[in-house]
Amino acid sequence: MPKALITTVPFGDKNRLPFELLENAGIEYLVNPLNKKLTENELAEMVADFDVIIAGTEQITVKVMDRASKLKMISRVGIGLDSVDLLAAKERGISVSYTPDAPAPAVAELTLGLMLSLLRSVHVSNSEMHDGRWRRLFGRRLAEVTIGIIGVGRIGTRVLNRTKAFGTPQILVNDVMPNLKLDREFKLEWVSKETIYQRADIISLHLPLTHLTKNMIRKEQLLGMKEDAIIINTARGGIINEQDLYNVMLAGHLSGAAIDVFDFEPYTGQLSEIQRCILTAHMGSMSVDCRIRMEIEATEEAVRFLTGTALEGGVPENEFEVQRQGL
Amino acid sequence: MPKALITTVPFGDKNRLPFELLENAGIEYLVNPLNKKLTENELAEMVADFDVIIAGTEQITVKVMDRASKLKMISRVGIGLDSVDLLAAKERGISVSYTPDAPAPAVAELTLGLMLSLLRSVHVSNSEMHDGRWRRLFGRRLAEVTIGIIGVGRIGTRVLNRTKAFGTPQILVNDVMPNLKLDREFKLEWVSKETIYQRADIISLHLPLTHLTKNMIRKEQLLGMKEDAIIINTARGGIINEQDLYNVMLAGHLSGAAIDVFDFEPYTGQLSEIQRCILTAHMGSMSVDCRIRMEIEATEEAVRFLTGTALEGGVPENEFEVQRQGL
Repeated sequence: MPKALITTVPFGDKNRLPFELLENAGIEYLVNPLNKKLTENELAEMVADFDVIIAGTEQITVKVMDRASKLKMISRVGIGLDSVDLLAAKERGISVSYTPDAPAPAVAELTLGLMLSLLRSVHVSNSEMHDGRWRRLFGRRLAEVTIGIIGVGRIGTRVLNRTKAFGTPQILVNDVMPNLKLDREFKLEWVSKETIYQRADIISLHLPLTHLTKNMIRKEQLLGMKEDAIIINTARGGIINEQDLYNVMLAGHLSGAAIDVFDFEPYTGQLSEIQRCILTAHMGSMSVDCRIRMEIEATEEAVRFLTGTALEGGVPENEFEVQRQGL
Repeated sequence: MPKALITTVPFGDKNRLPFELLENAGIEYLVNPLNKKLTENELAEMVADFDVIIAGTEQITVKVMDRASKLKMISRVGIGLDSVDLLAAKERGISVSYTPDAPAPAVAELTLGLMLSLLRSVHVSNSEMHDGRWRRLFGRRLAEVTIGIIGVGRIGTRVLNRTKAFGTPQILVNDVMPNLKLDREFKLEWVSKETIYQRADIISLHLPLTHLTKNMIRKEQLLGMKEDAIIINTARGGIINEQDLYNVMLAGHLSGAAIDVFDFEPYTGQLSEIQRCILTAHMGSMSVDCRIRMEIEATEEAVRFLTGTALEGGVPENEFEVQRQGL
């Protein structure tokens, strides 16, 4: 009987269908008994017996694969592949699939909510009011500021779409491959990342974690931003250097930030000392509908693999290329 | 030299133009020296010498007017008129103007931000993360819920418009006079308030405080809402009974609330004990652009009055009628 290890948590909480899919296909499964994001060692100790991992964002490294003698497939619940050593998987003949579209609407909507909260200092007033302090804080409307979007793919495009209802903000965009089709719909300027750092009032990141984007935003970039700029990271931890962000905000730079993703999760670092930094627990994809869709799609893919059906969410070659070139 | 008392604070913070308008017209002015919302008594003691009040939301009652022997005009910075005894003003020949359009975009945008934050429990996770606690909370997307809008005027309509970019949520609306033109643009159902209480996942209030709306939502209405409903009040304090809201939420009913307006401001009440209730300090109109526009419009109107020019923002007869009929 084939066995699947489900590492991502929560899983199957809002809809039991993923479990039923596995049961109906005669696949045995274990849900992560530690009920938290696994470390490399924890996963290595757990993985020996399994044919498939239905995976979260935990590190699936050579060390893990070396302990997983039966592993034939990794089915990522979500979009990022920074956690999976794709080349090591390919060498070992381990298939890798993912669900890149499912989380996008939820991440984009969370991002818009964070933008609107940050612009009006809702989080600061809320925190002050809960401490019995009344202070009417000025804010800005979206149409009054310059938005900078770095990464205009599945999620970045959806963020753009959701700004439409708020007037016509000035939007600066940056991506490896500018998508000029969007220019017909939006008042966009395709610019360098450096220009976004300098000119944007809100900077939002929607790009994968790779060797090129790791620590992309450090002290130098943060200090180059406007004094009252706002930065949002709902993409991946590590793209903004956390220590630098802490130091820079502690010193009074930036009017706000919202960080949903961290170098090490669960996060317990110093950013919690910064009141004007909104912190959320990697909840970008956590709308019930998107989460269910991600879990079902990733489970269906695991079932397809184990029942010899053609895969639908196989990771495209360019994702391997990114890791091959150390990009 | 005519004298204007500016009671609303902050005032002239982001743009000095209102002061310049007064100075250029030869009008002496005093900005509220207590730098907070005045009580009836505080205003009564302060008002004796002034021809005009450029007013916030403080109570301008018979008692105040009886002490204001020179008062000839009240120019409200904002929209609500619940704070002004319009009939007493009319009896005394005191003109009343307001700026009903200026705050609407800012209030609508804050409301959308509050909806998105509440749906994803951003405020709860933020508070937990700042206490060193990591918990991934499920949320819902706007398109997945039923929105109930009570009051579909200047602000309610703008809230509707801003939901457009988030898919096509089911929207229930209620107003004294249904605006059926909106049905062409939105998937709306015009229903009773009771139906909204029963069926909506998010209920947002956009109506004035009158004798009819005071305490409109009490324990009975709150308990009639879904257990995981969300309620937002960016309209006026007192429409929701604060004590009842506290009791009902303390007992575990409602999944969230956002309250920007209070019976008595500055607010220091028990809702601060409820973590899942977002509290903000009457900041609906506090975007820099809208606030400046409100201050300039209200000041221009005061200048018009004192220089004998026709008024542009005079309060329409139906507002007097509301108070006359005790509505």
